Amino acid sequence: MRIAIIGAAGMLGHKLALRLANEGMLAGKAISAMLRHDVVLSPPPPQAAFDVETHIGDLSSADEASKLVGWKPDLIFNLAAIVSGEAEADFEKGYRINLDGTRHLLEAVRLSGRSSTQLVFTSSIAVFGAPFPTAIGDEFLTAPLTSYGTQKAICELLITDYSRRGFVDGMALRMPTVCVRPGKPNKAASGFFSNIIREPLAGHEAILPVEDAVRHWHASPRAAVGFLVQAAAMGGASLGNRRALTLPGLSCTVAEQLAAMERVAGSKATRLVKRVPDETIRRIVSGWPQNFDAARAKSLGFSAESTFDEIIKVHIEDELGGNIS
Amino acid sequence: MRIAIIGAAGMLGHKLALRLANEGMLAGKAISAMLRHDVVLSPPPPQAAFDVETHIGDLSSADEASKLVGWKPDLIFNLAAIVSGEAEADFEKGYRINLDGTRHLLEAVRLSGRSSTQLVFTSSIAVFGAPFPTAIGDEFLTAPLTSYGTQKAICELLITDYSRRGFVDGMALRMPTVCVRPGKPNKAASGFFSNIIREPLAGHEAILPVEDAVRHWHASPRAAVGFLVQAAAMGGASLGNRRALTLPGLSCTVAEQLAAMERVAGSKATRLVKRVPDETIRRIVSGWPQNFDAARAKSLGFSAESTFDEIIKVHIEDELGGNIS
Repeated sequence: MRIAIIGAAGMLGHKLALRLANEGMLAGKAISAMLRHDVVLSPPPPQAAFDVETHIGDLSSADEASKLVGWKPDLIFNLAAIVSGEAEADFEKGYRINLDGTRHLLEAVRLSGRSSTQLVFTSSIAVFGAPFPTAIGDEFLTAPLTSYGTQKAICELLITDYSRRGFVDGMALRMPTVCVRPGKPNKAASGFFSNIIREPLAGHEAILPVEDAVRHWHASPRAAVGFLVQAAAMGGASLGNRRALTLPGLSCTVAEQLAAMERVAGSKATRLVKRVPDETIRRIVSGWPQNFDAARAKSLGFSAESTFDEIIKVHIEDELGGNIS
Repeated sequence: MRIAIIGAAGMLGHKLALRLANEGMLAGKAISAMLRHDVVLSPPPPQAAFDVETHIGDLSSADEASKLVGWKPDLIFNLAAIVSGEAEADFEKGYRINLDGTRHLLEAVRLSGRSSTQLVFTSSIAVFGAPFPTAIGDEFLTAPLTSYGTQKAICELLITDYSRRGFVDGMALRMPTVCVRPGKPNKAASGFFSNIIREPLAGHEAILPVEDAVRHWHASPRAAVGFLVQAAAMGGASLGNRRALTLPGLSCTVAEQLAAMERVAGSKATRLVKRVPDETIRRIVSGWPQNFDAARAKSLGFSAESTFDEIIKVHIEDELGGNIS
């Protein structure tokens, strides 16, 4: 089985490569080769029993997509995207990377005639726009309120149509917000959901720009990688003609996040969270989904963490070697 | 007010041009010029108090879209599309005409900086896919089961995002099936809904390929043109951030269509309908929407015919000079 990961330099792409290298197989089939692709250099390749190639290239050029499909992947994970804030700030770049990149890839697969090629695409809960019900069900309409969400919703439609036509075996996974995100604090509006846990656990202060009552939808990086692998093993046909799937997550408030951190790491951690209200972030976050009823994904066997304590423990195990300062 | 009609050679495009020529104004503003655009030659221009230009060109080339926007329309009706059957038979042509054409147009308007340009786009109930509720509401998900429906759903998303960003003032109108369609019988799977009325009223036989119990969603050509004009007069801002609107129609069965024809034209008309079951058409039609709750459009003041008798009378008035044979 030949596996290509597009967006391999990103946090999820790298974790996915590590997991596949570690397991050496997927869905009972041995992995024979891996291609890691990104517009920037990916991290050093993982130790693996199979060949790992690393390419740098821009998928938003049609040639690059053809070259990638010419590598003859049996399975493609397309995780490449520019984030919501950047897609809003740079309209043309957003459409070029987040829409045209995936369309070129679909076209390259179609034109290759390799119709059994699997494509696992990371969509987003940003395909949904307010007003929302208490919990967003599997049949809620996709009415995005950002260009990023629009681009993801369009990719879902394309993947569904190309799959229905038999040109590819695709699926689009609507990921929860990944939390606790490792690495440095970033300026994404959603960054604080991770910052307020990751930084105090490392002994550093973190800024909380919204009220403690703000509710959001989370899953750990480990769960997110698990979704990708499980979806690939399941195959797109199990989704029939609706190839976009809302994945399970944990709906919890900032207050619940902080209470979990206090249980896991004591008040010396929670005392490091400084409340500095930011009206801009508060307004952006107020338009985000807070809770889902991911019944379809659950019935297909997907599951995420059920408490924020678990999410914190995953972070401590996977990022901090089991220790907190 | 300068008005461009793309798809002006089509049935709706031509009727729209006639109505605008006849009224000379829209939303209280005098029409100063009209550009009729299509990939084939449009019918002879209507008598009008303003200049009517007629262009032949292919909007699926980006240059053509720029040229059209260079004409400086204040309002663009984009009715151009290849139909469902052709978009399914010719995958590349469908995406080129039905998706890229509209995207080029949106890009040309964005790059022109003429952000007050109004765009009224004809979407379709094909954006919806089974399974359906008894009546499809305004918040039902867009999960199309055809490439045509996929292309229309993507255009809805693009128009909504370009409008939200302030690049254009767009709206996407989900038209009911237009019935009674004038002209010759065509091979579209939906053609029989019109054939079984139009042909008998002209003294000719017509084939009914499905059961009398089949239910569908109709509006007259006059109502459809009325929707276009009314939507343009209203402007896209009245739709807020959800720029796709399901329009009202009449949900009725083939049996109800035929009963109405018998009331209007007697049994000499209904006797001309020959039942010749066609398994292919029966299967296609079984996946189509049957009924909607177009509450949002109604609350905005849109209305369609409320009985099929009215739809037949409109046909007799508009196409047969008030007489039936």
